[in-house]
Amino acid sequence: MLNAMSEAVRFEIEARCSWSGARAGRLTTRHGVVETPVFMPVGTNATVKAMLWDQVLACGTQIVLANSYHLYLRPGHRLVERAGGLHQFSACPLPILTDSGGFQVFSLNQLRRISDDGVHFRDHRTGDEHFIGPERSMEVQNSLGADIIMAFDECVQNPASRAEAEKAMERTHRWLERCLKSHARPADQALFGIVQGSIYEDLRAESARVVTGADLPGFAIGGVAVGEDRPAIERIVLHTTALLPASKPRYLMGVGTPWDIAYAIRCGVDMFDCVLPTRLARHGAAFLPEGRVSLKNARFAADPLPLAPGCPCYTCRHHCRAYLHHLVRAREMSAATLLSIHNVTHLHAQARACRQAILAGHFREHFQRCRREIAG
Amino acid sequence: MLNAMSEAVRFEIEARCSWSGARAGRLTTRHGVVETPVFMPVGTNATVKAMLWDQVLACGTQIVLANSYHLYLRPGHRLVERAGGLHQFSACPLPILTDSGGFQVFSLNQLRRISDDGVHFRDHRTGDEHFIGPERSMEVQNSLGADIIMAFDECVQNPASRAEAEKAMERTHRWLERCLKSHARPADQALFGIVQGSIYEDLRAESARVVTGADLPGFAIGGVAVGEDRPAIERIVLHTTALLPASKPRYLMGVGTPWDIAYAIRCGVDMFDCVLPTRLARHGAAFLPEGRVSLKNARFAADPLPLAPGCPCYTCRHHCRAYLHHLVRAREMSAATLLSIHNVTHLHAQARACRQAILAGHFREHFQRCRREIAG
Repeated sequence: MLNAMSEAVRFEIEARCSWSGARAGRLTTRHGVVETPVFMPVGTNATVKAMLWDQVLACGTQIVLANSYHLYLRPGHRLVERAGGLHQFSACPLPILTDSGGFQVFSLNQLRRISDDGVHFRDHRTGDEHFIGPERSMEVQNSLGADIIMAFDECVQNPASRAEAEKAMERTHRWLERCLKSHARPADQALFGIVQGSIYEDLRAESARVVTGADLPGFAIGGVAVGEDRPAIERIVLHTTALLPASKPRYLMGVGTPWDIAYAIRCGVDMFDCVLPTRLARHGAAFLPEGRVSLKNARFAADPLPLAPGCPCYTCRHHCRAYLHHLVRAREMSAATLLSIHNVTHLHAQARACRQAILAGHFREHFQRCRREIAG
Repeated sequence: MLNAMSEAVRFEIEARCSWSGARAGRLTTRHGVVETPVFMPVGTNATVKAMLWDQVLACGTQIVLANSYHLYLRPGHRLVERAGGLHQFSACPLPILTDSGGFQVFSLNQLRRISDDGVHFRDHRTGDEHFIGPERSMEVQNSLGADIIMAFDECVQNPASRAEAEKAMERTHRWLERCLKSHARPADQALFGIVQGSIYEDLRAESARVVTGADLPGFAIGGVAVGEDRPAIERIVLHTTALLPASKPRYLMGVGTPWDIAYAIRCGVDMFDCVLPTRLARHGAAFLPEGRVSLKNARFAADPLPLAPGCPCYTCRHHCRAYLHHLVRAREMSAATLLSIHNVTHLHAQARACRQAILAGHFREHFQRCRREIAG
């Protein structure tokens, strides 16, 4: 267990791949142990969309992400704090990671004004003016009380010029200083720093140098899969991961597809989050071993097979493709639930298969099979 | 168990109330035993909206209703038949009752043309022309393969003149003859007849005489809660239930509120269905012991209590009102699921409490408490 007043999380590496940067580890938090590499489903509003926690658990989920931006606007971090924090408020039985709110402030708001202080923006629902900067982000995340919290950063969308990327990176570094100073619960909540620098390798190197210069319990790679193509994603993940301390957990933010995850694991990333499995599910699509399919497709109308024969999820154990096709066509909410269960289970199974291959010493063969089967 | 080739359901009465018409019974079907009085959640498209079957089961559900009209239009009864019937297609682990499609043909379609043959109507989605009459309804329901199927009837909305009500009733009687002749699976599927007659007691008596003249395994009361006020509902249910054979199951169609159900049980009704618990849930409302509440209400924003303290449902065991308020406000699908679980559990608990009071010989006191607490 964790040393009571000194550390919010502990990370141990159990095995390293001799061929690649991949590793298997254990991240101990105050709400449970997380075996890595791990995929984290996104629970934006303190709920994974279309799922209840018992379903999230049954999929093999070990840790979930929640969005500070949304929870700050509604129901408000002070209300959550008075309810005893996110775990108590939402009855989430798992470790939680909150993002800083920065990504959503930048990506969801047209009406924003950025300065070195932080970001002024308007709630798109109410028109109310809000401000989030590093101090406010820490205040919000300290109130929410997640096990892992993220530094407030500026993430530029691609394509971005080198000058834009450099400016945002430098601001991210200045903001990290302020996050460190204002983080009020370091013994309870592990603050991860975020490396930026867009697609520019020298900026990534510079950012990794500055950010890992801080004595933090973990590091994230931000600004990936925000508009650039796949070769750029792979190049930057490979380059940046190697610049992060080997002994600390590494988190690739907002990524991604089954192949992106396999590739990042090969580079030495330990943690991932993405809305893809649940968003695809709400649009009637599922991850199959052979790729992504839309259950709307007429070819499934009378298909008596489970989605993915052999998949251990509730959906595949109980239902055939014909029924799922029918539910998707009829726009039933249960379609979103059943496909979310399958898609989340699929990504967990993929991460676990990588972990087992690393532990067993045959990750190279496993990765090459992944490349043949799921790349592209 | 059931005698293989002779009966589709068997009904035994376990206890009768000495003060009222209420009774407790057991309805044995090929997919399980149903203890009555019983509330049946509605699974229109072969799914109870926003719920999976394991959740439907965990609420205490013993039998569900599915809508022939919707399943005839999509995915089509022939497709369901080829999949092995509704149970196999939807993996529903419970007994199923299908309605005849009549009610939806009349209530959901502006573009309909009724004759003694049946009803011509247009699919509101595709514009395609369709026809359903007694023979087609039996064909559809025989293909779907539910444990209990319903006669094709004409249900007039209230207010209806005596002449309109009489005409529809007489047509319902002629259609029942044709249903009996065309029902192809009497050994597998129990066909229930439906008594009509609107708010007119003499018509109800006439209809009960004609319909119960057929040797059927159960009888339903149709045309209730279709526009009339509560005193009329109570008067017609009390009057009509007493006209049905005591030894056969009695089903009050599409009713209703917690009070309607308590009142109908007092009259001697055994089975109920209604979309109310799941529809209210999708609109953010819940049944509480003290009445119906909207979780949108700001007074719940920081309420740390469960919806109904002491309620054994998943929602009440795990979540507080503040979280449910938040999910409803954020329009999260999980709000619909959590409130459906609670509302369905609530109606099952209510029916079970009546059953236990009947078995224990104190239904009168129980009913009078219901009248004080939930009437109005």
